[in-house]
Amino acid sequence: MSPRADRRRVDVPDLVARARDGESRAVARLISLVEDESPALREVMAALAPHTGRAQVIGITGAPGVGKSTSTNAVVAALRADGRRVGVLAVDPSSPFSGGALLGDRVRMGDHASDEGVYIRSMAARGHLGGLSWSTPQAMRVLDAAGFDVVLVETVGVGQSEVEVAGLADTTVVLLAPGMGDGIQAAKAGILEVGDVYVVNKADRDGAANVARDLRSMLALADRREGAWDPPILKTTAQTGEGVPEVVAALDEHRAWSASNGELVRRRERRARAEIEAIAVSALRSRWSQVGQRDELDELAAAVAAGDSDPYAAADRLLDADA
Amino acid sequence: MSPRADRRRVDVPDLVARARDGESRAVARLISLVEDESPALREVMAALAPHTGRAQVIGITGAPGVGKSTSTNAVVAALRADGRRVGVLAVDPSSPFSGGALLGDRVRMGDHASDEGVYIRSMAARGHLGGLSWSTPQAMRVLDAAGFDVVLVETVGVGQSEVEVAGLADTTVVLLAPGMGDGIQAAKAGILEVGDVYVVNKADRDGAANVARDLRSMLALADRREGAWDPPILKTTAQTGEGVPEVVAALDEHRAWSASNGELVRRRERRARAEIEAIAVSALRSRWSQVGQRDELDELAAAVAAGDSDPYAAADRLLDADA
Repeated sequence: MSPRADRRRVDVPDLVARARDGESRAVARLISLVEDESPALREVMAALAPHTGRAQVIGITGAPGVGKSTSTNAVVAALRADGRRVGVLAVDPSSPFSGGALLGDRVRMGDHASDEGVYIRSMAARGHLGGLSWSTPQAMRVLDAAGFDVVLVETVGVGQSEVEVAGLADTTVVLLAPGMGDGIQAAKAGILEVGDVYVVNKADRDGAANVARDLRSMLALADRREGAWDPPILKTTAQTGEGVPEVVAALDEHRAWSASNGELVRRRERRARAEIEAIAVSALRSRWSQVGQRDELDELAAAVAAGDSDPYAAADRLLDADA
Repeated sequence: MSPRADRRRVDVPDLVARARDGESRAVARLISLVEDESPALREVMAALAPHTGRAQVIGITGAPGVGKSTSTNAVVAALRADGRRVGVLAVDPSSPFSGGALLGDRVRMGDHASDEGVYIRSMAARGHLGGLSWSTPQAMRVLDAAGFDVVLVETVGVGQSEVEVAGLADTTVVLLAPGMGDGIQAAKAGILEVGDVYVVNKADRDGAANVARDLRSMLALADRREGAWDPPILKTTAQTGEGVPEVVAALDEHRAWSASNGELVRRRERRARAEIEAIAVSALRSRWSQVGQRDELDELAAAVAAGDSDPYAAADRLLDADA
């Protein structure tokens, strides 16, 4: 199918209207347009923009095995009990090429499959811009504009992705669990900088109190500015739902806090800045790959590979040619 | 320390000369300049360029637990027995902020600590350009110019990093091991596209034959162009060194094959292209963060966060302002 044919076929205003009416097929189609980098994407984003900024965006991250999916499901259930509509994006960075996202959808819908107030989508972290940074923020815009009260973004905490999700969310939940071996060690690296709410899941198991205590000491050591948010450490047993309402309360409290002091707007502007930059960079990359500029880049690459130039000098010439 | 003071202190020609004389402290200093994005970096890269392109660059990747470090050490030992000088870059994407790289160095030097023909460096996969894509290729240039015959880049195979390492290396080794549970499942995603040589480590354990057989069937299903390289599947017990000389032979065979038919040059040009682009993008990002352009970007971000604009329209305006 040519880009032109695709553009003709997509009736963007109609899709957006239907998504805003709560039709989940329209939501799914819009997210697919995002993931596929459809030529209609610009039109979609322009149509969504006026309806964005309402949803509470929550990031949930943690190492494999801490019970992330179970916790997400439990939080969704608690939010639903409260009457809120919830959109979930589950980002799996281990499946760059996977068609597994679809299977994941079906498996995960489980508890909420027949609930119109819940939309769950698994997203493979693919794309030339590297995973989260590309399609996830745009899929979040779709859910936000479609009127979901809460957008949950669930990511596996591997290195940079937990930092990225923190950049995306209004509030970031970091999940830990006992018996994860070097969980806390791994946590040390990045997690202390990103959590607004910490949750020790599997609180019924041995060692949960230790995890919470270790975490508390580490957080106590961290530099905190005057008036900064003091991240609570909560305990849950997501499987039974124990402790989950307290998590939801903490999420709402952080949201109210950040809305009251400007932090929410600052985070959203930071998120928008990162999005704009990523799109601008992508536009430049595609410009560089077009005829003319592509020849220039090929020549520069050949010179660098041959040791006749270095990548900095070559980058300067590429940018000069671009201006 | 101001950038200016730093620039004055670094005697780049002297450092490069000493690195080329095999002085490992000079090599270490050059890589630190890379990692710290020193203002002297451009001068360093220009000075190194004429001496690059000689090393055989080998990527080693695999899921945690397959015995990657042990295998790397065993391959280093085999290459040393053959009289070749080896530089190793161990990239750990789980430590974005870690000072752990230093500890890693000490722990890993182990077998080779007193051997002047081996240099091992752990690198945290940090940086705004996302891990590997930024400092690793430049650190590879340092080792290449310093005269190491082989540069080994070892990465944890998590999603995109295994694809990235394949982009960096002349030859990519994918490690597997029995008893990794969903190792093969994970492998399916990306690994089939990147391996030039497959190694089933822990071959003395139950299930090694099954892993090799499963892998063989999967590779048989993959589309291969006429005349393409047929990746061998080897078995090792890295702990004892069993099978390791055969791995080195396969690496050399792939290198000879790719040098003879132009594939080596193609890969190196592709690598150079990616490097040039990454540097150009980074230059643009820093331009965008300077006064004037920064105000523009802040305004655009505020408009997007408020729903008054969308990120595509904003990116267009950012690029217009840049031209």
